[in-house]
Amino acid sequence: MAVPKSGSTNIIVRVEMDKASAAFGRIAMAIGDSGGDIVAIDVSGTGKVTTIRDLTVNITDTGAKDLIVQVLNKLPGVKVLQVSDQTFLMHLGGKIEVTPKMAIKSRDDLSRVYTPGVASVCMAIHEDPSRAHTLTIKRNTVAVVSDGSAVLGLGNIGPLAAMPVMEGKAMLFKQLAGVDAFPICLDSQDTEEIIATIKRIAPAFGGINLEDISSPRCFEIERRLIEELDIPVFHDDQHGTAVVLLAGLYNAVKLVGKRLEDCKIVLCGIGAAGIACTKILQAAGVTRIVGVDREGAIVRGNDYTHDAWRWYAEHTNPDKESGTLSDVIVDADIFIGVSGPGVLSRGDIGKMAPDPIVFAMANPTPEIAPEEAEGIVRVIATGRSDYPNQINNVLCFPGLFRGVLDCRASRVTEEMKIAAAKAIASVVGEDELNEQYIIPSVFNPHVAEKVKEAVVQAAYASGVARRRERGF
Amino acid sequence: MAVPKSGSTNIIVRVEMDKASAAFGRIAMAIGDSGGDIVAIDVSGTGKVTTIRDLTVNITDTGAKDLIVQVLNKLPGVKVLQVSDQTFLMHLGGKIEVTPKMAIKSRDDLSRVYTPGVASVCMAIHEDPSRAHTLTIKRNTVAVVSDGSAVLGLGNIGPLAAMPVMEGKAMLFKQLAGVDAFPICLDSQDTEEIIATIKRIAPAFGGINLEDISSPRCFEIERRLIEELDIPVFHDDQHGTAVVLLAGLYNAVKLVGKRLEDCKIVLCGIGAAGIACTKILQAAGVTRIVGVDREGAIVRGNDYTHDAWRWYAEHTNPDKESGTLSDVIVDADIFIGVSGPGVLSRGDIGKMAPDPIVFAMANPTPEIAPEEAEGIVRVIATGRSDYPNQINNVLCFPGLFRGVLDCRASRVTEEMKIAAAKAIASVVGEDELNEQYIIPSVFNPHVAEKVKEAVVQAAYASGVARRRERGF
Repeated sequence: MAVPKSGSTNIIVRVEMDKASAAFGRIAMAIGDSGGDIVAIDVSGTGKVTTIRDLTVNITDTGAKDLIVQVLNKLPGVKVLQVSDQTFLMHLGGKIEVTPKMAIKSRDDLSRVYTPGVASVCMAIHEDPSRAHTLTIKRNTVAVVSDGSAVLGLGNIGPLAAMPVMEGKAMLFKQLAGVDAFPICLDSQDTEEIIATIKRIAPAFGGINLEDISSPRCFEIERRLIEELDIPVFHDDQHGTAVVLLAGLYNAVKLVGKRLEDCKIVLCGIGAAGIACTKILQAAGVTRIVGVDREGAIVRGNDYTHDAWRWYAEHTNPDKESGTLSDVIVDADIFIGVSGPGVLSRGDIGKMAPDPIVFAMANPTPEIAPEEAEGIVRVIATGRSDYPNQINNVLCFPGLFRGVLDCRASRVTEEMKIAAAKAIASVVGEDELNEQYIIPSVFNPHVAEKVKEAVVQAAYASGVARRRERGF
Repeated sequence: MAVPKSGSTNIIVRVEMDKASAAFGRIAMAIGDSGGDIVAIDVSGTGKVTTIRDLTVNITDTGAKDLIVQVLNKLPGVKVLQVSDQTFLMHLGGKIEVTPKMAIKSRDDLSRVYTPGVASVCMAIHEDPSRAHTLTIKRNTVAVVSDGSAVLGLGNIGPLAAMPVMEGKAMLFKQLAGVDAFPICLDSQDTEEIIATIKRIAPAFGGINLEDISSPRCFEIERRLIEELDIPVFHDDQHGTAVVLLAGLYNAVKLVGKRLEDCKIVLCGIGAAGIACTKILQAAGVTRIVGVDREGAIVRGNDYTHDAWRWYAEHTNPDKESGTLSDVIVDADIFIGVSGPGVLSRGDIGKMAPDPIVFAMANPTPEIAPEEAEGIVRVIATGRSDYPNQINNVLCFPGLFRGVLDCRASRVTEEMKIAAAKAIASVVGEDELNEQYIIPSVFNPHVAEKVKEAVVQAAYASGVARRRERGF
């Protein structure tokens, strides 16, 4: 494929042409007139009556794509079968592969990595199962497990459609932290079936990363698996978000000269991520947290049917503040949004304590757009890459799993999560810290290494690391 | 690690030395006296009282390993913690890895392979799930699934201990046919649980290779999964063996000038592999098959408690031959052994029809050793790599799965298996064919390609290929 010009992209248009009536010249002209430039042609099939060609077309305006399809379909004897853009082309055949670490070059190699020599390794593991952590891929491999019930902002799109996200995650695991991750997308959305399935496939893996499983099932699934498996289970949508949020908050409060423990925090959106964020904040010493959901502030004494809200009412909001978001935001130091677009107004920020900190993490549209908060907010972070201060889970999961695999942790403790948050925050130097830079970029090469080191240390301190520490 | 001299090998001896009482000089001398040569030393840990060193030792006699451990453990203050040989070293950290097909170099890359761009690919699959075959790893990925119940000749060693075999298989899949294979070792040996688990993890995979699952559960598991999944399910221990056996037989009968359909075949060992071999022979036109197991020839009318034997009695042995192996072997053209060591005697071969063909495939010790059969057998094949004519499943599974993935087959039909057998046989040219060379080597580079082509063609002919054929 020709390299697209800067600002342009290549699309591949697969056309079926009737041999008798279609004329390639007319196709080429139509594409040119619609803003496309044919840079390559491949014949992908020829039958008695029709021929199929793949036309690689360079376009500078993304709108040209639809126009080209329209005009081609109007030509006599021409039918557009498929159009692939750059994103689709990168997905062809999947984004990851399973490769041998060494080539089998001789009978001698074959007899060591496979029969008959492999038998001695099998028996060594049979005698002492903990050897699987050194002699098999369990040493370095994580399952990225989803049931496709809550994928990105797309909702319940099912396991097959969730695969591209899990594959992308596996790419990041390997590129950023050398962790081998394999996507397991489950054809079941039943809590007990998911638990049973993950337990049964666990032997090959050193950790389980749960992903995009809808609430409230995700709580029970994670809790039970943590109890019933001896490898770490980590629901990234909950705890990854919480860790990176905390990292950002550590730097934000440092910047404005407050102590996190002293802050009043209003958190909007009491779902899986909201609860995980609340728990990590409490573990970090924050006491004044007021949760807000569709019915307003969550207050002890109210009658909630939702389990998570009941828990929330009992464990937060010590001053029993009630009312709408606009009521309870008064004098808050920090707003955290894991809810929906436009929930926070400029007026709300105006009621906050001096130097307001806003983490508007709803995706793709934040609770308030940074431009709208300009001038009255001191620090604003979002989930988006096109604004400063992106709160992105990619900062946490590669290094965290690198750490748990390296020390063979049996679980991820609250201390390990807080250590990861501090490590992420520490990547931004004292002299670099400013309102536009409270959290490192996902491409910062130091993040995964720092997170790993912190997680390993905290795992030993928590007593969950099972690898014998060297030199102790 | 230093490269071992030819005929020698390196072992790594991890010793814990008491700082006060152990002397390294004495260790070095003891190793030298025991036939070892220290070629490298690494300090792997130091504490207050002890130090741990990894000694890389070159040995020419494999017996030296045990001797070295013995003498070291007798030295004051010295304890051998672990000894790793070449085979173990090749297994450290596992033998396969999961790698991205492309590097994520920029925010633009990240936004295509992960959020937010990946959403368009997810939605395309959600709209048409068959697109998962082109836009995800399902295109090229096979699960190698075992419950560890019948691993090699080692028996029921469990899922963790089975991992090295499955990883070795994944290496061969990739190296020989470019197929991505991932090992799934199940922590359950319950038929229904295994079926349910494989069904639930199926979305990521384009095929299921069942491996080392004990009989009779393997029959039900395979049968049900074939019925209930829309991707091919192939129990390699049954059908891989059967395909390669048939390939060898095609060439063996060609060499002796017989037609396979006319042959009388005695098959010893009516387990999973034996039944699969019988079925493929019947599909290839053989009618006179006499099965023999511990109780002698299996004959219609006898009362068998074992389901598989009942089936066997009804479908084979048209002439109702009865008695021991030595009775029914009379006038047999072909003996097939998938049983145990030493089952066939030289005297038995003497009773066979002219130009006897013996496939003694028990592992690691065949039903009769080739040297014992010398002079009276015309063609002999075994499962071993140190004799000519090795019947090795590696000749079948990589190319077969390459084929089913390429044409997106929904199942593996009998026609596809026979096509694979013919393709393997065809790699041995007419002019090359002789008693010592009826089957190609596992390293023959043409095998997987030929098998793939034959399987794809047969899949279209069987009507199970779902990929639109180009040019038709």
